[in-house]
Amino acid sequence: MQPVFEQVRPTQQLIANLYRHRQEGVHPVPIHWHPDLELFWYRSTPVRFFCGGRTVLLPAGTPVLLFGGEIHGLEPVEQAAPSGLSVLWPHSFLSQAVPGYARLGGPSGPVQSERLTALLQQLLEVCDGEQTPLTPLLQNAHLYGLLHYLLSTYAAPQAAMPPSKSLQHCRSALSYMQQHFRSPITLESTARHVGVSAEHLSRLLRRCLGLGFLQQLRDLRLDWATSQMAGWQQGLLQLCLAAGFPDYRAFCAAFKERYGLTPRQYQSRL
Amino acid sequence: MQPVFEQVRPTQQLIANLYRHRQEGVHPVPIHWHPDLELFWYRSTPVRFFCGGRTVLLPAGTPVLLFGGEIHGLEPVEQAAPSGLSVLWPHSFLSQAVPGYARLGGPSGPVQSERLTALLQQLLEVCDGEQTPLTPLLQNAHLYGLLHYLLSTYAAPQAAMPPSKSLQHCRSALSYMQQHFRSPITLESTARHVGVSAEHLSRLLRRCLGLGFLQQLRDLRLDWATSQMAGWQQGLLQLCLAAGFPDYRAFCAAFKERYGLTPRQYQSRL
Repeated sequence: MQPVFEQVRPTQQLIANLYRHRQEGVHPVPIHWHPDLELFWYRSTPVRFFCGGRTVLLPAGTPVLLFGGEIHGLEPVEQAAPSGLSVLWPHSFLSQAVPGYARLGGPSGPVQSERLTALLQQLLEVCDGEQTPLTPLLQNAHLYGLLHYLLSTYAAPQAAMPPSKSLQHCRSALSYMQQHFRSPITLESTARHVGVSAEHLSRLLRRCLGLGFLQQLRDLRLDWATSQMAGWQQGLLQLCLAAGFPDYRAFCAAFKERYGLTPRQYQSRL
Repeated sequence: MQPVFEQVRPTQQLIANLYRHRQEGVHPVPIHWHPDLELFWYRSTPVRFFCGGRTVLLPAGTPVLLFGGEIHGLEPVEQAAPSGLSVLWPHSFLSQAVPGYARLGGPSGPVQSERLTALLQQLLEVCDGEQTPLTPLLQNAHLYGLLHYLLSTYAAPQAAMPPSKSLQHCRSALSYMQQHFRSPITLESTARHVGVSAEHLSRLLRRCLGLGFLQQLRDLRLDWATSQMAGWQQGLLQLCLAAGFPDYRAFCAAFKERYGLTPRQYQSRL
């Protein structure tokens, strides 16, 4: 899973970024973090949810709430045609719309209630119903209702706490790796950028991401290479080098481990 | 009833101006116009509704929709303790939030449906429930839902039509009178400002407002004088002259006609 610092902007007229998971949707969601309030809900498949250094397997239909700031990722177990919703209310919007939002905090993890499921189901029906120029108004009605429910049910005032040093270092490493994975970066160069020793960063990443540095780097390169494959005009060797892999063998090994196919086999099925 | 060009700004975090009519609320609503989408609903009292030059008496509980641009006013028949809601979605907000809003039009007048009454009832309950810093989120959910219902039920594409010359002249006269009623203005000076003959303006005002110039001017002065009375430190003669009345007799006559009391009797009951 690819770590990304995700910058969220509201979709057109909506107060939040709203994703309807469908076959053509983007999934899995790589390890990343953002300051925004997130709610995701896969109805059709269990989800491996990674947060705070641990992975848990959640049954299908479990809504997950993230108050923002946590490094997290998720992977639908059945990737074929997941169905569900993800909503991200941007931090900038929340600061304006909710008095005292900066002093609110809440859980990051699975949340369950009949009311919440009903609200999500209603929003899903709006997304799947006939789309007109007025549909965003109805979506906003549901997004405001959902936000009110989440904050009034799960948020509580909390002491303003800066993120821990460990979390800051991990975020910094993630951003650096995301920017430079196509170059020959190393644990050492990343640690220098973050300002800690290589040994310390290695431990931190394992704790925060559940992955070692090399595995993380390989995932970044693999995600990028896969995303480019459909429109790639040059050879696969050029693609593998452009993605930052040191050689074709490493590329093939990574590919086979994740997809059970060679890059060429994968490409021929696109 | 006092004619006003009403400029609407959203209330704090809300997407619309939202008024809960209660005993302490502002009523009647004087003759005025604005480019904004308005919905008002008095549950507890019939309402005299003035629009497009005609006054109709609407039974209690009738929602009234105004698509903006019309000169209108209203007066609850039982003024003691009206209960209800008024909502104004600013034109600036609608232009942003609704694609193609400039090409939409719709009726100005009473609208009735079970669904609309249910939506208004829900919004009223939110307004009357416990108020927390999160209440505006729930109000916005209802305001978006209501807006979606109104537009999808009552709006239709229409040819972009500039307001008629008559309507433009009336609006211009209303604005001028509103600004200058405390000075000795006349039909002639107002007509000069508008750029039409006095005879023509007189006819236009009767058609658009249902009132002659002098009656309109008297209402403006009376509304202002009444609104000042509670905190007025000087004598009633000074008040009457400050309001623009030519003399105390005219003031008294206007007062008695509207309230059935002399100014002094009225003041002694405040």
